[in-house]
Amino acid sequence: MPSPEEIREVMERYVQLMCESNADAILELYAADATAEDPVGGHVVEGREALHDFYAATSPNLQVELTGPVRVAGQECAAPLLAELTMNDTKLYIDVIDVMKFNDDGKITSMRAFWNPQEMRPTR
Amino acid sequence: MPSPEEIREVMERYVQLMCESNADAILELYAADATAEDPVGGHVVEGREALHDFYAATSPNLQVELTGPVRVAGQECAAPLLAELTMNDTKLYIDVIDVMKFNDDGKITSMRAFWNPQEMRPTR
Repeated sequence: MPSPEEIREVMERYVQLMCESNADAILELYAADATAEDPVGGHVVEGREALHDFYAATSPNLQVELTGPVRVAGQECAAPLLAELTMNDTKLYIDVIDVMKFNDDGKITSMRAFWNPQEMRPTR
Repeated sequence: MPSPEEIREVMERYVQLMCESNADAILELYAADATAEDPVGGHVVEGREALHDFYAATSPNLQVELTGPVRVAGQECAAPLLAELTMNDTKLYIDVIDVMKFNDDGKITSMRAFWNPQEMRPTR
């Protein structure tokens, strides 16, 4: 079972790799049968190939930063983020909370991102 | 299906009622068969009577405040909080993220609180 520190490190590394648009390295953080729901209520991406496609498509236009402490509880965590999306030279911002579950090896089995596409705004 | 505004209002009212230690009114926000897991990874409280006992026991010693925007996604939301716990004249603080699911009537069906008891601290 991963320690709270290990879970926090994976979350922080995930944020860093998102900023570096490194889909390959992001996939290394995930378990083989993992899922991602981004945003929550939308399509659930499942499995390594689909996850890689998802991150390869989204991360190049995205910067993310932690806006508060990562809350670790059991084998899960929740983290408040600010995302900056660049579309055609226009920057849009959105507040996000990512919730992640981990397996006994400290790999992500589920990522769920809480945000509302209708709430993207032009300023931080 | 509740609107994002309705979900946000329930979350904000929940925070207010926690500060007022009003277990009866908190229960009115919940669906009949709801669950609460606080902290995540711990015991799951289930059903109205158990939920009322839980809030009647915990809310009198607790103040909570939102530390950022409530993120609404689908029929769920996630909210960053700072909790202030008073024990024998001593105040302890902890960063929390509450994740809630809602039914079609806008009642809470699931509350999960992300925090680590080992991370309580003496200052905000």
